[in-house]
Amino acid sequence: MSQTSTAPAHVVGIDYGTLSGRAVVVRVHDGAELGSAVSTYRHGVMDSVLAATGSPLPSDWALQVPSDYIEVLREAVPAAIRAAGIDPASVIGVGTDFTACTMVPVTADGTPLNELPGLADRPHAYVKLWRHHAAQGQADRINKLAADRGEAWLARYGGLISSEWEFAKGLQLLEEDPQLYERMDHWVEAADWIVWQLTGTYVRNACSAGYKGILQDGAYPDPDFLAALNPDFAGFVAEKLEHPIGRLGSSAGTLSDQAAAWTGLPAGIAVAVGNVDAHVCAPAAGAVAPGQMAAIMGTSTCHVMSAEHLREVPGMCGVVDGGIVDGLYGYEAGQSGVGDIFGWFTKHFVPAELSEEAAARGLSVHELLTEQAAREEVGAHGLLALDWQSGNRSVLVDHELSGLLVGLTLATRPHEVYRSLLEATAFGTRTIVEAFGASGVPVTEFIAAGGLLKNRFLMQVYADVLGMPISVIGSDQGPALGSAIHAAVAAGAYPHVRDAAAAMGRIKRNEYLPDPVRAEAYSVLYAEYTALHDYFGRGGNNVMRRLKALKRSAHEVREVPA
Amino acid sequence: MSQTSTAPAHVVGIDYGTLSGRAVVVRVHDGAELGSAVSTYRHGVMDSVLAATGSPLPSDWALQVPSDYIEVLREAVPAAIRAAGIDPASVIGVGTDFTACTMVPVTADGTPLNELPGLADRPHAYVKLWRHHAAQGQADRINKLAADRGEAWLARYGGLISSEWEFAKGLQLLEEDPQLYERMDHWVEAADWIVWQLTGTYVRNACSAGYKGILQDGAYPDPDFLAALNPDFAGFVAEKLEHPIGRLGSSAGTLSDQAAAWTGLPAGIAVAVGNVDAHVCAPAAGAVAPGQMAAIMGTSTCHVMSAEHLREVPGMCGVVDGGIVDGLYGYEAGQSGVGDIFGWFTKHFVPAELSEEAAARGLSVHELLTEQAAREEVGAHGLLALDWQSGNRSVLVDHELSGLLVGLTLATRPHEVYRSLLEATAFGTRTIVEAFGASGVPVTEFIAAGGLLKNRFLMQVYADVLGMPISVIGSDQGPALGSAIHAAVAAGAYPHVRDAAAAMGRIKRNEYLPDPVRAEAYSVLYAEYTALHDYFGRGGNNVMRRLKALKRSAHEVREVPA
Repeated sequence: MSQTSTAPAHVVGIDYGTLSGRAVVVRVHDGAELGSAVSTYRHGVMDSVLAATGSPLPSDWALQVPSDYIEVLREAVPAAIRAAGIDPASVIGVGTDFTACTMVPVTADGTPLNELPGLADRPHAYVKLWRHHAAQGQADRINKLAADRGEAWLARYGGLISSEWEFAKGLQLLEEDPQLYERMDHWVEAADWIVWQLTGTYVRNACSAGYKGILQDGAYPDPDFLAALNPDFAGFVAEKLEHPIGRLGSSAGTLSDQAAAWTGLPAGIAVAVGNVDAHVCAPAAGAVAPGQMAAIMGTSTCHVMSAEHLREVPGMCGVVDGGIVDGLYGYEAGQSGVGDIFGWFTKHFVPAELSEEAAARGLSVHELLTEQAAREEVGAHGLLALDWQSGNRSVLVDHELSGLLVGLTLATRPHEVYRSLLEATAFGTRTIVEAFGASGVPVTEFIAAGGLLKNRFLMQVYADVLGMPISVIGSDQGPALGSAIHAAVAAGAYPHVRDAAAAMGRIKRNEYLPDPVRAEAYSVLYAEYTALHDYFGRGGNNVMRRLKALKRSAHEVREVPA
Repeated sequence: MSQTSTAPAHVVGIDYGTLSGRAVVVRVHDGAELGSAVSTYRHGVMDSVLAATGSPLPSDWALQVPSDYIEVLREAVPAAIRAAGIDPASVIGVGTDFTACTMVPVTADGTPLNELPGLADRPHAYVKLWRHHAAQGQADRINKLAADRGEAWLARYGGLISSEWEFAKGLQLLEEDPQLYERMDHWVEAADWIVWQLTGTYVRNACSAGYKGILQDGAYPDPDFLAALNPDFAGFVAEKLEHPIGRLGSSAGTLSDQAAAWTGLPAGIAVAVGNVDAHVCAPAAGAVAPGQMAAIMGTSTCHVMSAEHLREVPGMCGVVDGGIVDGLYGYEAGQSGVGDIFGWFTKHFVPAELSEEAAARGLSVHELLTEQAAREEVGAHGLLALDWQSGNRSVLVDHELSGLLVGLTLATRPHEVYRSLLEATAFGTRTIVEAFGASGVPVTEFIAAGGLLKNRFLMQVYADVLGMPISVIGSDQGPALGSAIHAAVAAGAYPHVRDAAAAMGRIKRNEYLPDPVRAEAYSVLYAEYTALHDYFGRGGNNVMRRLKALKRSAHEVREVPA
């Protein structure tokens, strides 16, 4: 601790989520969260029409508007300072984290292309949000070519790269709007773009570059590879992507005058290198040692864990040197749909009888269904689900997969389906934990973070399904706290993220313990899950892919007028 | 036609369904339906508690009370006569049909055991309704033993007999309440019990005996076989079951004085041999020639068709000489859940938003979902379902199977699931039609009857999925009309059911024609259905059976107090 002055020092962590940004003011010496504020993005997610023109967007698109991110700096940061009741002069650093892979096409000075005259009507000029899935065709080609050529980097991503990532989205931009691609000077992670806005300097963070940008052992995919994808893509790395890398916990620069004016913070304070929302939770949850897997459970779940050794885990999202904390290999895996699935079912498949009962009792529908589901023994619903309503990120890495329910009878009721969906996500998590263990990267502690923590029954199901205790983060603002931790390190208050995490992070150890009887019953169901998982996910029956193809062609029939 | 008098003659058809009985007055010379009335069973279906005691019933039980059937004679028949405005003296015959296999344990004079002093609290003393499924264990043993011994009759039932039928239910009675079994003199189809009440004479009808009682080529399973199931079961056929057979269209006797008093009809008029609700629809729909398949589509669907030759169709429910019309082989197949599945989904999985919209527009939820579903192209929902929420009757004959849904995404909405359920039942029907064709009993005309006719979109889906025109019955009281046709033949007004059907039956030919484009699209989906059907239904993955077993054992855990 470098604290010697009498007045406590503070840092601000800013978490950029899918729909809003949150700023939190944190005390440097103990991590106390003193105040926070949220700013909702004015344009939200554009996934059906382009706001500027009202034109429809094709299916699987998801865009955002960069100026919405600036609004967070102008609104949420000052509001958080006010809420904390601190003197802005006591703030010594700012840290940020962002959804990923969320990409901004910009000019040499960082101006987003959609802000250039005459380009506001071009969908490709906007931010491609992480859940923009329209580059699947490009991802498929990248994967096939990489496999055919035996590219060494492919195994670092579990054998498949995602349509969400920098290369697939960039190739889509090139092929669908080559003129715009030409005008783009940098293809920038939003995580780095926001730091650029804060400091005036473009620094590419090690986390995004490694997990989303295929930077491995200091190199990107080579020009031959890129040219084989598309001759005009040969210069993608050299011309659009490559940039000096900032290590996590480092300072990317200092707060510019303009950013100081936006935020009300002192110009010249440290700004941490950018980070990804999930990964930055690890230090907030105290999960910085090898074997500690942090699962950030919200609409989707991201699993991050550090280890001393480099291993190739099939179906992981990626392994990156220094990807979570500097000095260790950072592993990432994920489940593309978790809370989203519960929300979808609750919103669209629960009858008035139940929604009215919930309202009358002052419960959410989630709470009512959970209460009903929790009364039953394991297996009493006779159901089994595959949790692929949003595809499967790990360990199958296939967005063309879809959800499945089996065991339905005329006696099946909504709370039973709901429980089977909760359980399916737990089975999905166990699949990931076992894949790590089988690859020589054992998970020794499972630490849950994120919005789903509030469902205690769900957490108990996870403990029972995993057959291991679940520790939980002690903050409900994990990403922002993690960003604040990085800010403190960037400002020199701690020598390393590990030390800052020890002082500022929050963990409740072994909050949920597995029940041996339920754990055994779930192991039986898990074997059934695995059989279906492999049959539908590993080529036994590609019906899910074919149904999605039929769906697309049926929609095309409608969209082309006769 | 034997009509020579000036005043027209009438017959009464009485249809005993699952929840109520319906009487219809029909004019003999042209089949005009002049009046009808319904009597709802006072005790309905007892599937959770025994009404007499309030004691809980185990799962899969379904009982009825025989006196409820008598009430139909006392209430509905006179009410129908009044509604028709005819002179009761013009009625020349009565015909009946019943759910099957629905079994009544009785004494030698036909008294149901539950009416004997001291037996009202014994569940096994009551009628076991067709959908009593608690004899699955007995059915499994019967099937295994029959297969092991190579019993010739097994192939007449598609290779498996059902837990719903006479032998499985009888064996359950013996094994769970041997004292009651001892007191039972006859194990009688309700279809025959009601005729017994009308005439005072027990006549066993050829249809039930063949389809539900394993009577083939004049013989039942032999005592050796029965003894191998359970030594105390050896005399089941000789002591409880065997009885003279009445051919369909024959007279079982004449209306007794007591029954005349109940019904207000003239004593001494002809009473037709009993019949089964589905089979009796065939003449009502004019489907009495070889190759004409009548599908009676309601909560479940029954398919009946006559043919000149005896063939063994895998997975059919049965083939019986004279089982539908005397002189032809009658084939039966079935789908155990159809309208039931749509009703279950509509009741339990449709949110307030939709049920309120339906109410505001004066539609049923079924109608609203159908309207929404009908707007989409084939395959646009990306879903595929297996229609096994009530198990699978044909062609898999397995009540342990369950419903499945695949292709779910976060964009999936209720009307899409609803449509996938409609389609799944159509695929199930196509599976049956193809099984008959492949076995040398081709279906040349498909004639739909039953309550689901009112959903015109559903009927069009069936035409498109089957790729053949759909004809429909011209009556919405098909079973009662069919019973009336049998009454007319029993009374001598026509020489044969074929002739009566020609004069009194009603068919609208080719009401729905397949659309070639949709038919082709559905053929692609049908191939996917078949792959899942075979994988889950033919041993590729017995997960459905195992989930049901887990469900049963989980419920047992709860039911046994610690």
